[in-house]
Amino acid sequence: MNPQGALPASTTLATIELLAVVASAVFGILLACRKQLDPVGVVAVALAAAFGGGTLRDLFLGRRPLFWITHDHYAAIVLVLALFGALVPGFIRRFERHLAVPDALGLALFSLTGAAFAVEAGTSLLIAAILAVITGTFGGVIADVICNEIPALFRSGPLQATCAFAGAWVYLGALRLETPPNLALLLGFVGIVGFRLAALKWNLRLPTASLDP
Amino acid sequence: MNPQGALPASTTLATIELLAVVASAVFGILLACRKQLDPVGVVAVALAAAFGGGTLRDLFLGRRPLFWITHDHYAAIVLVLALFGALVPGFIRRFERHLAVPDALGLALFSLTGAAFAVEAGTSLLIAAILAVITGTFGGVIADVICNEIPALFRSGPLQATCAFAGAWVYLGALRLETPPNLALLLGFVGIVGFRLAALKWNLRLPTASLDP
Amino acid sequence: MNPQGALPASTTLATIELLAVVASAVFGILLACRKQLDPVGVVAVALAAAFGGGTLRDLFLGRRPLFWITHDHYAAIVLVLALFGALVPGFIRRFERHLAVPDALGLALFSLTGAAFAVEAGTSLLIAAILAVITGTFGGVIADVICNEIPALFRSGPLQATCAFAGAWVYLGALRLETPPNLALLLGFVGIVGFRLAALKWNLRLPTASLDP
Repeated sequence: MNPQGALPASTTLATIELLAVVASAVFGILLACRKQLDPVGVVAVALAAAFGGGTLRDLFLGRRPLFWITHDHYAAIVLVLALFGALVPGFIRRFERHLAVPDALGLALFSLTGAAFAVEAGTSLLIAAILAVITGTFGGVIADVICNEIPALFRSGPLQATCAFAGAWVYLGALRLETPPNLALLLGFVGIVGFRLAALKWNLRLPTASLDP
Repeated sequence: MNPQGALPASTTLATIELLAVVASAVFGILLACRKQLDPVGVVAVALAAAFGGGTLRDLFLGRRPLFWITHDHYAAIVLVLALFGALVPGFIRRFERHLAVPDALGLALFSLTGAAFAVEAGTSLLIAAILAVITGTFGGVIADVICNEIPALFRSGPLQATCAFAGAWVYLGALRLETPPNLALLLGFVGIVGFRLAALKWNLRLPTASLDP
Repeated sequence: MNPQGALPASTTLATIELLAVVASAVFGILLACRKQLDPVGVVAVALAAAFGGGTLRDLFLGRRPLFWITHDHYAAIVLVLALFGALVPGFIRRFERHLAVPDALGLALFSLTGAAFAVEAGTSLLIAAILAVITGTFGGVIADVICNEIPALFRSGPLQATCAFAGAWVYLGALRLETPPNLALLLGFVGIVGFRLAALKWNLRLPTASLDP
């Protein structure tokens, strides 16, 4: 099985991946502007948000070159977007309300590449599911850490990591049942996107952990 | 010399390593609960605390696959422990007062693997000692950074990095004097555990650095 | 083309690189003392500041062993300097007012190694320029993040990342125009140092980004 080959190299996928990078970058730009960074900071946080999760995936699995070094047009797009966001007040605001869907698509796509590349590298299923979550969500975590915030991912809010984790298991379980890889990816993809949009719509969340009984 | 082969693959060692992972994870869980994270945050901080130092060691020395990808039962144990810690109030508290010894064992074991793998990779002795400290202590540092705290390791408190550094030199010095690797490891191990427990008992600490004369 | 071979292995270069490491370490020591860390923290922040950018460069490009593992006298120098800084109040203050020039030299040297190694690895020009900035400036970013500060690099202040980015393009543009590698490096070097010193002198800075129109 070759999960990289299994990722359908269609225009649809390329479009979704691009949307995912853009959605992550916009998240980073909005965060950086709220923190009143300068344009350098906006670019840096946007790059961290867009590339952080995939970079950890590639480092942990020993993949070289890193995905953003290969697909270098992603960096160009993030750079232009971040400079516009930093220098033209209000520009990036237009994107904000349309973010939920590309954000969910991005979460699904990034997470599934994490799981698929982990399977390819021969990890166990649990490790593949953990790498799915890291790939799908740690761009935002790194952006939050740089901006001196406790990562929103780790606080009570609409389910996000949980969706990635559950959807990764759908994908991994389907593979185990000898579903064709493309179909397994599709099932995982629909699972993550649907779960995430439901979590946003009905505000599904986990309770805060506490030491007090 | 093959330090990995030199690590005695006995039940004793496996038990100590497991205790080390559990002790680090419990440290992370307690920290995450104090910061009122949700279960996802508790799992993430527990994983970071348990695997952070060894991951840096493996990345810096170019070792693949990462130790937690190979020993995938560690992730399962941390995951279950973190979910119990997050969802069952007071569960993790029972471990807290028994943490000093597994914590010292874990510091010693992780530190010595850092030094041993560095020697195997042909680094200088100083670099090996620095990698010992990073491996033994940076899980906690990463957990603190994620939780938006200045790392406790870097503030005045009972000696920890210093114990790892001193014990690494005991190990490295013994190797230099052509002590058999297993004996050198034992000497370093006893050195770190003893020094750390002494530091906790008598509150040995370094002064705060200051710019004012 | 072999950019590593292209870096002139002269006494001049070795002196500049050493100055760069020392300048970065002094920055880290001052930061750690202001945050009232203990000597372990001062050493750790000094090492992070001196080695952080180059470590990311080596990890992202898959270079092994890491530069500070090869040039192990750098770690010895940083360690001694940090311990003096932590234990002898006022010692490190003597360096502070002389930091601007070695700091600019260090920014230039580290940035150009990032660009040169990226070109060697076959990345696009934009990726090489981004790696130049990361290599030249992320030691300070990591030190700031460890110390729980929003990175100074990302806030409005005298241009720094911008100088590295512009100077990297001078170097990359010169290479494209088939300038001999040593001359291209010299042009980039003069560009970064000159731009940085001018930014400090005339307080050149970018405006703060804001979401409000």
